Amino acid sequence: MTKIPTPVLNGPFVLRHLPFSPYVSSMLKIAPFRPPPRLLLGPGPGNVPAPVLKAMSQPLVGHLDPAFIQLMEEIKAMLRSAFLTKNEMTFPVSGTGSAGMEFCFVNLLEPGDEVVIGVNGVFGNRMVDVAERCGARVTKVEAPWGQIIEPAQIAEALKKVRPKLVAIVHAETSTGVVTPVEEISKMAHEAGALFVLDTVTSLCGYPVKLDEWEVDAVYSGTQKCLSCPPGLSPVSLNARALAVATHRKHKVQSWYLDVNLLASYWGQDRVYHHTAPITMNYGLHEGLRLILEEGLENRWRRHEQTYLALKEGLAGLGLELASQPGHQLWSLNAVRVPEGVDEAAVRKRLLTDFNIEIGAGLGPLKGKIWRVGLMGENSRKENVNTFLNALKKILG
Amino acid sequence: MTKIPTPVLNGPFVLRHLPFSPYVSSMLKIAPFRPPPRLLLGPGPGNVPAPVLKAMSQPLVGHLDPAFIQLMEEIKAMLRSAFLTKNEMTFPVSGTGSAGMEFCFVNLLEPGDEVVIGVNGVFGNRMVDVAERCGARVTKVEAPWGQIIEPAQIAEALKKVRPKLVAIVHAETSTGVVTPVEEISKMAHEAGALFVLDTVTSLCGYPVKLDEWEVDAVYSGTQKCLSCPPGLSPVSLNARALAVATHRKHKVQSWYLDVNLLASYWGQDRVYHHTAPITMNYGLHEGLRLILEEGLENRWRRHEQTYLALKEGLAGLGLELASQPGHQLWSLNAVRVPEGVDEAAVRKRLLTDFNIEIGAGLGPLKGKIWRVGLMGENSRKENVNTFLNALKKILG
Repeated sequence: MTKIPTPVLNGPFVLRHLPFSPYVSSMLKIAPFRPPPRLLLGPGPGNVPAPVLKAMSQPLVGHLDPAFIQLMEEIKAMLRSAFLTKNEMTFPVSGTGSAGMEFCFVNLLEPGDEVVIGVNGVFGNRMVDVAERCGARVTKVEAPWGQIIEPAQIAEALKKVRPKLVAIVHAETSTGVVTPVEEISKMAHEAGALFVLDTVTSLCGYPVKLDEWEVDAVYSGTQKCLSCPPGLSPVSLNARALAVATHRKHKVQSWYLDVNLLASYWGQDRVYHHTAPITMNYGLHEGLRLILEEGLENRWRRHEQTYLALKEGLAGLGLELASQPGHQLWSLNAVRVPEGVDEAAVRKRLLTDFNIEIGAGLGPLKGKIWRVGLMGENSRKENVNTFLNALKKILG
Repeated sequence: MTKIPTPVLNGPFVLRHLPFSPYVSSMLKIAPFRPPPRLLLGPGPGNVPAPVLKAMSQPLVGHLDPAFIQLMEEIKAMLRSAFLTKNEMTFPVSGTGSAGMEFCFVNLLEPGDEVVIGVNGVFGNRMVDVAERCGARVTKVEAPWGQIIEPAQIAEALKKVRPKLVAIVHAETSTGVVTPVEEISKMAHEAGALFVLDTVTSLCGYPVKLDEWEVDAVYSGTQKCLSCPPGLSPVSLNARALAVATHRKHKVQSWYLDVNLLASYWGQDRVYHHTAPITMNYGLHEGLRLILEEGLENRWRRHEQTYLALKEGLAGLGLELASQPGHQLWSLNAVRVPEGVDEAAVRKRLLTDFNIEIGAGLGPLKGKIWRVGLMGENSRKENVNTFLNALKKILG
């Protein structure tokens, strides 16, 4: 696959100030990329609405241009609305959702800190890994994949350790389960800990109420219910989290993600830090605009109705969701693979014969579930029907 | 500036499974963003060619889609051509150039490691900061801003310490000087050290020859001479660097940038790590295609000719470049601000009256230079004329 081109001579000219190079640069004949038309019903990205793609095709401005600074202000304001927070420190980190996760942990943790992390899927495990790389001592609170983390489990853990923070994945993209977090947040605060929340797959597709739930630090991604391309990670820190991040013994181990430096760029000072991804921010701006135009509650309700339609349609085919009843995520659905069905073969046929992408199960759920994302723009009953009709044909 | 919207009631409906929320989401009246038409002659981003923007407006595919995997392979192959390397481990990090810098240091360094870093501008200093955050002990080899790092200085440092790596900024974006690195690379290797190079502003606008120069690890950015939007950082590690990164005592402190994990995604295994920024990679693919279509040497020569035209035009206005003669970068030019001229006022008039962006001086060069980028697509004599005509009118 990864052929290395053979250098050949490109012409007789000689650069004036350079020794002649035998290398050549036009030896690769690669055609422009033309993506196949996919209906993206996997764990993300989903399909991106045309106005967002159009916004991203606009000419660039500089990252310190007054016009871009205005754009940044509008993005921050709209993100606050999306997160339902008044946190000043609300902005998109210049990386994907995992960079947002790392942003939260590197800024809040120092070597030797105790943390409690709920683990009921891939992203809980990832938080553990990231926290350990910050030198933290992690107490895992585990639940079977597909089940929620129960408040009682957190209470139990808090009897044994006094952590600096408690972190939970709100919506586990790997299992389609959503853990209620209000009670856990209270427990964390009563124990003197910060409460950190992963809302990658819930933000704008399921209620996320930062201030009401007293979440201290949160991260999300653009490619799920925000219906933007992947590449940015909206984050928010409240005053309590920010105080921790700005009063550390050691420097934040990541320069790129250090909120002490980022605050000067995304804040009022506009001090150059890194060059913000201009085009991605054009896209996020338009994506957020569309979301607020629809209205958060309307959008939540649409996601719920689409989820209910999927559930009903699946039942008609004798299929069911694998995640814990009563705590099923609306935006990402874990469909149990029936006995004797080759799950990978079904996914492959969906892609090649119907141009529909869905996701595979991960870890202990590999081969056992399909992950069907109905996120943001894609959360529509038409898509449920398209998917179910294709699935019906394949299953016979 | 950062107004927090007042929550108001949005309507009478009540969500079935949710307590009624007083929040509302459509209270922000924000118009679609329409960027002003700028000629971007600052330190980056520059203007992006229409085919790249068009490529980025195409519908998304999944990050594990066979079509996207083909795209990844083509990007890797084209990046190898751009870097003039056969390094298998050549790919774009999902962040801006500074993330690429951090990628190199976090993967190669462990606490207590000795490093030697050339510092003759902002980005040398940034490397020091990043290396120290990895727990390294840094020996700085300093030159005045605008001057190159001399091989003799590195030789001197290597008499005193035995570093794990020697790092140099090839093209200092903050000063417009380009340090010759072949001799320094040899010295580093003779001392048993790896050689790390920052080519953010040189790649595809000035000769960069990874294999010929035996560079062990390199990073760059997409928004300079590659003429793509900011958001990705092309990196390359040779076998020697990769051996160091994969045989460490401690885990890489960044999960997001850990090459041991990234290799499984960008390599043959295709194991899910993070969700690659699909649209940014569409853009990079098209940008690299255009570069290789032009030919690397042709592109270098174009940059050199544009630089010479600028230099000549400046002389006609009684102006000159501030960086060391004989080592001036072609893609980024430090123009000395004449005595008695308010540099910020000139920049502001260029932007507001002529829609031309140029950059300010940083650090000790603040107020003393303008930074004029003629990078990638923008490296054309027409742009030199447009800029000089505007400057002439402003200076009177």
